[in-house]
Amino acid sequence: MADEESQNGNPDSDRLARGKARLAEITGRSGAEVMAALGEIAPDFARYIFEFGYGDIYSRPGLDLRTRMLSTVAGLVALGHAERELEVHIGSALNVGATREEVVEVIMQMALYAGFPAALDALFIARKVFAERGLTPPQG
Amino acid sequence: MADEESQNGNPDSDRLARGKARLAEITGRSGAEVMAALGEIAPDFARYIFEFGYGDIYSRPGLDLRTRMLSTVAGLVALGHAERELEVHIGSALNVGATREEVVEVIMQMALYAGFPAALDALFIARKVFAERGLTPPQG
Amino acid sequence: MADEESQNGNPDSDRLARGKARLAEITGRSGAEVMAALGEIAPDFARYIFEFGYGDIYSRPGLDLRTRMLSTVAGLVALGHAERELEVHIGSALNVGATREEVVEVIMQMALYAGFPAALDALFIARKVFAERGLTPPQG
Amino acid sequence: MADEESQNGNPDSDRLARGKARLAEITGRSGAEVMAALGEIAPDFARYIFEFGYGDIYSRPGLDLRTRMLSTVAGLVALGHAERELEVHIGSALNVGATREEVVEVIMQMALYAGFPAALDALFIARKVFAERGLTPPQG
Amino acid sequence: MADEESQNGNPDSDRLARGKARLAEITGRSGAEVMAALGEIAPDFARYIFEFGYGDIYSRPGLDLRTRMLSTVAGLVALGHAERELEVHIGSALNVGATREEVVEVIMQMALYAGFPAALDALFIARKVFAERGLTPPQG
Amino acid sequence: MADEESQNGNPDSDRLARGKARLAEITGRSGAEVMAALGEIAPDFARYIFEFGYGDIYSRPGLDLRTRMLSTVAGLVALGHAERELEVHIGSALNVGATREEVVEVIMQMALYAGFPAALDALFIARKVFAERGLTPPQG
Repeated sequence: MADEESQNGNPDSDRLARGKARLAEITGRSGAEVMAALGEIAPDFARYIFEFGYGDIYSRPGLDLRTRMLSTVAGLVALGHAERELEVHIGSALNVGATREEVVEVIMQMALYAGFPAALDALFIARKVFAERGLTPPQG
Repeated sequence: MADEESQNGNPDSDRLARGKARLAEITGRSGAEVMAALGEIAPDFARYIFEFGYGDIYSRPGLDLRTRMLSTVAGLVALGHAERELEVHIGSALNVGATREEVVEVIMQMALYAGFPAALDALFIARKVFAERGLTPPQG
Repeated sequence: MADEESQNGNPDSDRLARGKARLAEITGRSGAEVMAALGEIAPDFARYIFEFGYGDIYSRPGLDLRTRMLSTVAGLVALGHAERELEVHIGSALNVGATREEVVEVIMQMALYAGFPAALDALFIARKVFAERGLTPPQG
Repeated sequence: MADEESQNGNPDSDRLARGKARLAEITGRSGAEVMAALGEIAPDFARYIFEFGYGDIYSRPGLDLRTRMLSTVAGLVALGHAERELEVHIGSALNVGATREEVVEVIMQMALYAGFPAALDALFIARKVFAERGLTPPQG
Repeated sequence: MADEESQNGNPDSDRLARGKARLAEITGRSGAEVMAALGEIAPDFARYIFEFGYGDIYSRPGLDLRTRMLSTVAGLVALGHAERELEVHIGSALNVGATREEVVEVIMQMALYAGFPAALDALFIARKVFAERGLTPPQG
Repeated sequence: MADEESQNGNPDSDRLARGKARLAEITGRSGAEVMAALGEIAPDFARYIFEFGYGDIYSRPGLDLRTRMLSTVAGLVALGHAERELEVHIGSALNVGATREEVVEVIMQMALYAGFPAALDALFIARKVFAERGLTPPQG
């Protein structure tokens, strides 16, 4: 795979460009805001997120984006402390086609594995994300 | 106990029966083994896992089982310490239709959120689960 | 216990009613506020907290409520990220008969197991809960 | 308090002696084994556990030992990774008067806050501790 | 070592005095503010932080203070939830001679082990600490 | 910086080669064994560890390797669950010039931030690493 990538130029700039496009596609405006703020304190770190996070990992085939983002929401709920990223990626999950109901289901399910406080906090973040988009929570 | 409860349309025995069927469908033999061992030390806790975990949560509509299990794998990787459940539910993900490749993709993606050690440990557990089923790891 | 529960009707509505009463008894006003907010985003999840959390777990015999709540405070301190629940359940511990001194002792002890930052953050939450009730911190 | 302690000699050796006695009282043989092994790699750290852990914290008035140990069990379950200490302190809880049933109740309750995997793993450790003492698990 | 310490008086008051001096040296004003607030809710806990945290641990030879504080920053990033302490100890690292660049390098490196969200949150805290001191972030 | 790197060839293969050399330099034989095993289950993930982990992050200037590895040990202790990586990187710290005493100091210090169980477990891993190299633990 690396060989094909490098045929028409610089693989590093390919990764950077591909990652920037992928991040924009997935996270939309809220990701762009975090990356801009990050660029002020640690521009290399911002570059790694573009290149490795989105240019490498999120550009892999083998798993559809909707499942990737719902899995990411699950992982962030389980971490317990990643509120900023949870807010961004609940939005990302909606951006790539997951429904409000699916987001809420994934969060509720994490109560089984990471406890009710982690799920509860995530549901309140979801409510905020839904409201900012003019969406009501799903019924059920 | 289950017998008495189930006689007159008892919702509790419905939940128990539904949960037992759901757990068997999802986890297969490895889940059954954990539940049997658990029944010896805390039978009520085994009952709650059937009733609440599988009779309530895993019986909800609104999210397909394949996405549920891949999200669960993601959450368990992020927790970092849940090796027994990770082994069971990597198997569950395969049982409900996820591919080896999808399992590996979800685990690798968690390196972004929970760090490489958590993902690395999970990949070694996945290798063990694949091998026990006579499967080779996916290429890539 | 199951026999008595199921004699006069629907065990699920028994669990719900029992859980609502138990939550009110333990958490008082602050629990009610969280549950009301939760009901707007995920009413089923609110129901699970009533039914499973308070109707099942917190209605079990075998451990007195004061020890249950002090153990819950300990667990929430150890989690590190559960600030909302810690605030509610420091209040719950006081509601069911624990003293300010006991709450502070449990939190300080967690420094041994979860580190000083987790204990420090919890002590500041305890100070807030005590102040809202017009209580001064215990001496010592 | 420091004044009274220092009247009859060296407070540091008082703390050390008091801590050693307290650790022996609480943890019995299993604590002694851990401390002996620790003394080989980091004798100062063993001394801090005696002095600070048991000479300071576990020698405080204001909370009875049974509640202290059940709270410690709760905190260790919530941590998720502290298997060695959980085994020692499930034993400690029994040593200072908690019943098997109380230990199991505290562990099950942590499923609400730290998730089922953490509680499940702890129940299997409890089963081992009970078996080593010739105790059967409590019913229920 | 205990013998030498105790020759000229009370080792406990030695530890307390030594710890207070060490905390002031390392954390400066921000540590003093936290300790003052803590003294209002749990004065004994404040004393333990002085005596054990700074009088014992941070007064040990065998590791230079700059490495101690950068390691502490690393550990706090990995914890994920210790924002208050991270803010204090990013400042401490600068106080004892670490550069802005070194602080940022340690935080970025933790992305490998604890994930990008933990590192990202820590970088934003570092930006705040740098700004309060009139420092710009390092380039790179 | 990226410009200079890409002048004489393929930056991706540069990163891979640089990362492989860096990993070998830092981790020695124990890192090689983990990477070989990982290559069997997820070769792309092994490549990311070489490229991003060691080719990018561990090849950065701005922080000396000894401080990098001691900070990594601190972070892994704080995580609590990363036993495999802790064993590898306690070895790495020794490989790049840290002393046994410094490793033990960093681990003991983490007791303050992540609790005694995390530090205790890490000290036992350190004892194993020291013993495999024919080293005795440091005194103190």
